[in-house]
Amino acid sequence: MARDVLAAVENQRGLPLGQSARGSGAPGTPASARLDDIFEGADFIEIIRRDEGLSIPATSFVPQDVEPDHHFTITLDEGLTYLGQGVMYDGFLADGGVPGQTLRVTEGDIVKFTVVNTGTVPHGASIHAAYTQTSKYVGQIAPGETKSVTFRATVPGVYMWHCAPGGHAIPMHVLFGQYGMIVVEPKDKQYKLEQELGRKPDLTLYLLQNEFYTSGREAVDGHPAYTAFNGQPFRYIENPITAKPGDYVRIYYLNVGPNLVSTFHLVGIIWDYVYWQGHPDAWMPGGQTVTSGPSDSWVIEFRVPPDEGAYTMLSHSVGPTSRGAIGLLVADRNADTPKTVLADGPQWTEEEMTEKAANATRTISPFAPGTAGKGMAAAADRVVSYGPEVKEVVVEIIGNSYHPKVIEIEPGTTVTWVNEDVFTYLAGEFSGVHNAVGMRGPKRFATPLLGHGETGSVVFDESGEYDYICTPHPYMKGRIIVRER
Amino acid sequence: MARDVLAAVENQRGLPLGQSARGSGAPGTPASARLDDIFEGADFIEIIRRDEGLSIPATSFVPQDVEPDHHFTITLDEGLTYLGQGVMYDGFLADGGVPGQTLRVTEGDIVKFTVVNTGTVPHGASIHAAYTQTSKYVGQIAPGETKSVTFRATVPGVYMWHCAPGGHAIPMHVLFGQYGMIVVEPKDKQYKLEQELGRKPDLTLYLLQNEFYTSGREAVDGHPAYTAFNGQPFRYIENPITAKPGDYVRIYYLNVGPNLVSTFHLVGIIWDYVYWQGHPDAWMPGGQTVTSGPSDSWVIEFRVPPDEGAYTMLSHSVGPTSRGAIGLLVADRNADTPKTVLADGPQWTEEEMTEKAANATRTISPFAPGTAGKGMAAAADRVVSYGPEVKEVVVEIIGNSYHPKVIEIEPGTTVTWVNEDVFTYLAGEFSGVHNAVGMRGPKRFATPLLGHGETGSVVFDESGEYDYICTPHPYMKGRIIVRER
Amino acid sequence: MARDVLAAVENQRGLPLGQSARGSGAPGTPASARLDDIFEGADFIEIIRRDEGLSIPATSFVPQDVEPDHHFTITLDEGLTYLGQGVMYDGFLADGGVPGQTLRVTEGDIVKFTVVNTGTVPHGASIHAAYTQTSKYVGQIAPGETKSVTFRATVPGVYMWHCAPGGHAIPMHVLFGQYGMIVVEPKDKQYKLEQELGRKPDLTLYLLQNEFYTSGREAVDGHPAYTAFNGQPFRYIENPITAKPGDYVRIYYLNVGPNLVSTFHLVGIIWDYVYWQGHPDAWMPGGQTVTSGPSDSWVIEFRVPPDEGAYTMLSHSVGPTSRGAIGLLVADRNADTPKTVLADGPQWTEEEMTEKAANATRTISPFAPGTAGKGMAAAADRVVSYGPEVKEVVVEIIGNSYHPKVIEIEPGTTVTWVNEDVFTYLAGEFSGVHNAVGMRGPKRFATPLLGHGETGSVVFDESGEYDYICTPHPYMKGRIIVRER
Repeated sequence: MARDVLAAVENQRGLPLGQSARGSGAPGTPASARLDDIFEGADFIEIIRRDEGLSIPATSFVPQDVEPDHHFTITLDEGLTYLGQGVMYDGFLADGGVPGQTLRVTEGDIVKFTVVNTGTVPHGASIHAAYTQTSKYVGQIAPGETKSVTFRATVPGVYMWHCAPGGHAIPMHVLFGQYGMIVVEPKDKQYKLEQELGRKPDLTLYLLQNEFYTSGREAVDGHPAYTAFNGQPFRYIENPITAKPGDYVRIYYLNVGPNLVSTFHLVGIIWDYVYWQGHPDAWMPGGQTVTSGPSDSWVIEFRVPPDEGAYTMLSHSVGPTSRGAIGLLVADRNADTPKTVLADGPQWTEEEMTEKAANATRTISPFAPGTAGKGMAAAADRVVSYGPEVKEVVVEIIGNSYHPKVIEIEPGTTVTWVNEDVFTYLAGEFSGVHNAVGMRGPKRFATPLLGHGETGSVVFDESGEYDYICTPHPYMKGRIIVRER
Repeated sequence: MARDVLAAVENQRGLPLGQSARGSGAPGTPASARLDDIFEGADFIEIIRRDEGLSIPATSFVPQDVEPDHHFTITLDEGLTYLGQGVMYDGFLADGGVPGQTLRVTEGDIVKFTVVNTGTVPHGASIHAAYTQTSKYVGQIAPGETKSVTFRATVPGVYMWHCAPGGHAIPMHVLFGQYGMIVVEPKDKQYKLEQELGRKPDLTLYLLQNEFYTSGREAVDGHPAYTAFNGQPFRYIENPITAKPGDYVRIYYLNVGPNLVSTFHLVGIIWDYVYWQGHPDAWMPGGQTVTSGPSDSWVIEFRVPPDEGAYTMLSHSVGPTSRGAIGLLVADRNADTPKTVLADGPQWTEEEMTEKAANATRTISPFAPGTAGKGMAAAADRVVSYGPEVKEVVVEIIGNSYHPKVIEIEPGTTVTWVNEDVFTYLAGEFSGVHNAVGMRGPKRFATPLLGHGETGSVVFDESGEYDYICTPHPYMKGRIIVRER
Repeated sequence: MARDVLAAVENQRGLPLGQSARGSGAPGTPASARLDDIFEGADFIEIIRRDEGLSIPATSFVPQDVEPDHHFTITLDEGLTYLGQGVMYDGFLADGGVPGQTLRVTEGDIVKFTVVNTGTVPHGASIHAAYTQTSKYVGQIAPGETKSVTFRATVPGVYMWHCAPGGHAIPMHVLFGQYGMIVVEPKDKQYKLEQELGRKPDLTLYLLQNEFYTSGREAVDGHPAYTAFNGQPFRYIENPITAKPGDYVRIYYLNVGPNLVSTFHLVGIIWDYVYWQGHPDAWMPGGQTVTSGPSDSWVIEFRVPPDEGAYTMLSHSVGPTSRGAIGLLVADRNADTPKTVLADGPQWTEEEMTEKAANATRTISPFAPGTAGKGMAAAADRVVSYGPEVKEVVVEIIGNSYHPKVIEIEPGTTVTWVNEDVFTYLAGEFSGVHNAVGMRGPKRFATPLLGHGETGSVVFDESGEYDYICTPHPYMKGRIIVRER
């Protein structure tokens, strides 16, 4: 029932009704009555009426009990995944990896977005395709809890969704892996190359660029250890994407960042059309690149030229590109188009994960000392050793991690932690308030909870290894090795 | 008189005269005669006539003695302000803080922009809203001096103004705090959401993103210690901006930088329209972000959805965001709109400043050793200690600061300064030529003036503390602690 | 003959034929026959026919034996050039310097692009103005070899060309100096200010922003030692560009990067029009800046205001700007316009190079220890000294360079190399697989070839100096100084 009403509402807004899957909206009934149907009992009904009557899209607000067209369920937790290049990643995960699933809806669809927190710390969600209040519905989800928000996707485009537990945890959970792409297809409008060619794309590629960090210091400074398309460095070097010469290619491109600007380019291609943020009306012709800050997006359209060969895709900010954001589109007359490639992160079976872990070069983690596997641990994870002339060692706490993570000191050295995280409102996971509390070692120790710039000091007299954590963020781990006297 | 002439000139350019505050331009008089009035005695009168006759805006040139519609006075000096989070800032200031005042004019207005240098080093101004020569009028202002430039604001948009004393000092004074926003409102055109809704915005928000640095090294590398909206980290977390559900919001957004790209986003909002650089004709529909390099700007328009709750504003480059560029827009049915929030930096009374200073966590300065307050000094300000095996310590001079700022050495160690600033034309404040001259300590010392890459060395045999400065930039300060033998 | 056919083809595509230099295309002949002429024997003829019939530009594909309108020859090698500021650069060169030559063609022109590798390692080319497969023709060029690709420039704009030997070498050769600008002028369309003023620009300025790095570590992290317009820091401070008040200025602007975002601004100028990527249909009015990620481009048009004086050009990301990307446009009634300034790198005679080298402050190199001249070597090139308490020193291999490049150690110290380059597919120059092999010193040593994260260790017992290289990239050089026992 709500579906008919909505169709009528859209009709009232001057949009042609098209081949709506929802059936026809009986045009005889006054739109206002129908509006009352769907928005029955809604607060701010005058605003809703005003917005529905405008020539621009309404906001995404619908009452939370409306029946959705799509119901998506996202799982958020923490743990291990495989990045490729022999590298295991121990961080925050979405749908068991990085990035999470690609969601696709059509303009006008009502979407129920459910988040399941299967982890051990609070998570949450921000959904850029939703033009309405979402924080109070899915902004804070405790471990074990499931929450939902329902909204109407009213503006076509390519959007980011990501974990957003609130406060300091918003940037932290985005930095460390919890995000994905959601696309709202235009309902009645067509992208221009589809109009020109009179058909759908042969290759539909959902492409997301993202970064991986080995520590909070590097994350805050924007120096990723790895960059990737769709979650795996050099994923499409190992498995090139193929298309036929002459194929019509559409890329839904999202730069997740979370820090760097990407200038996406395809060697040998000039775009036919690009659409800012994926909006069909915000198009530009030509161009060699699209530039995207974090959370920026484009729809990109072009034809594969009438020649076989490899076309290299990369971000033209080539320092970070050399860490993984390179792939291949191969023009091959035998390619299996039409096809669709999603921006979902790579999926590994338990068996594959066991094998990857056994053969790993290294494990990285933004929060804890990563480890060497068959190679050497990442720079942020190597022991930093201080000589006897150093009487006080400062360990910074920044980006929910200790810097340096592992130190080696003389007996009698003072270790001083200083909290360089700045967002120190709220408490626990939602805050940048930290401490250092010994969990294992010759002696117990604990600093007070530290606000921004505050310090806590401990003298380490006894030799041995001390492992410590931050009690508000117990996944944060550091180690102190006190040499033998 | 000049006002009538101007109105006529604008009329001649095909712009409707509107409800000009200047009275009606008598249409019987030939425009050329009137042009002669306002531009009487101007050089290049043929160019002026050509430009006035085009269908695009004229440049901003007017003779300097024309009577202005607005007269703004900006004060530039150096000193201390409070950033929030317990952090005091000792840098370059505009109107006594960071950023300086928000200036608002209407397309066509003649603006007199006066700069008072109440500081101790040369300052100056660059005004991005002026499409005309300004450097020769306000490009170099000696301490104690006041200078002005008069221009006509001919192109609507959101602009930056900043200190620009010339040469090497242009990037330095921008890096370290002297800037603000100037908005030129369109006169006859309306932004599209104003057209759609048929009224003015309920919430008009002037929002500026900026960065604070603790040293020249970090400033040149683009690693800010703090980021902020309107000059104070987490300013609108502490004091959220409120609006009613359904309110029409317009944001005049400027990313000052001075280094980082911002991708401004509001959790729960999709823009109705954005306008590149604030120009009403350069609009795009939809979008989740606006991306702005340093000195880029946008006008952003949207409606608050029909739901109460908090909408988080942030730059989606989340590493730097975690240092302060987060705020809240709270939708509350009891909000006190219509209202205007300016991009002026926070203002503190002398009493408040005394109290803030007494309770500060730390004081930072890009130029000199900052200090610990109730917390620890910033990383750039901590003593760097060298063991006896180090015979020569290199101190880099970069971004008008010494790196490291404070060193501790053994007696007999050679300290070598190398000038890593590159702009070594001109002299004094206008140049990146530096030296190191002892001002206090057991012995006097001085290096020569150093061009780019050049070095000066001093052997420190005598124990004690040495404070030194750069004589061309006497606010640059370093310290050498020579241990007891 | 091919010329006539092409004209007809363009005519068929609905473009007015204009004053084509190629003569008139006889309109009586069926286009399909003519198409067969130019594309005779081409594979994928149905795709070619489809593309030629669209209302958007065809791709750039033409058979490789078609006679070109322009034949450009680019020379790629490695070696020394002069950057200004007393700095010599030892890196990858294009046309003997950085950047290489500026290429200019007109929409519709057939271009033969020849690359001569006069160096000692493989090079290649990516040409962003070509909307067709190029990699298989010029993607890999061995030392001493010459290769060509022929394409039709079908989309007007401002483009980058650069070395692209394939694989890991693509980002490396771009990072270290091999690039230039290629402009495709619109054939029948005019830029808007040209329409408005009814004439060609008085000052045509091809302006390219680029970066120089002293090490792979800095290149990957995006911390350039120098930035420049047209290849030389402060080039147009030393030699300002002049124009008359009132002059019509067009800038073809390309940000090469290869890492940083530029926000180009001219103090005192608001743009009349800017064109995204230089496409005449992608214009916007007004604006104080244009923001460009690496490989982004714009056409910028404005008038010099009716006032003499200096207009400072800079990227408003002012940290990097202070390293060289500042210049002057001087409005002077006696300026020698009309004129054209190309984006070619500075050219030095052998005599000048000898003189520059003799007086250099320093020589920098991304790959090898740079040297002090009359000043001090760059930071990345200074000896890093380790005390006797350090038993193992880790040297990272990143961005085709060793980090640190030069170390001083105690006899008996273990040196461990870890390969932090990630692209370890392929072999030799095309790959990020590295090693460390002693070439000079008391004893020979060699690590195995190292994949990403892998390590090789050598114990250095014997005092003396050891110089070593990476055998797959023999220009990579490091040095180990083992102290006397």
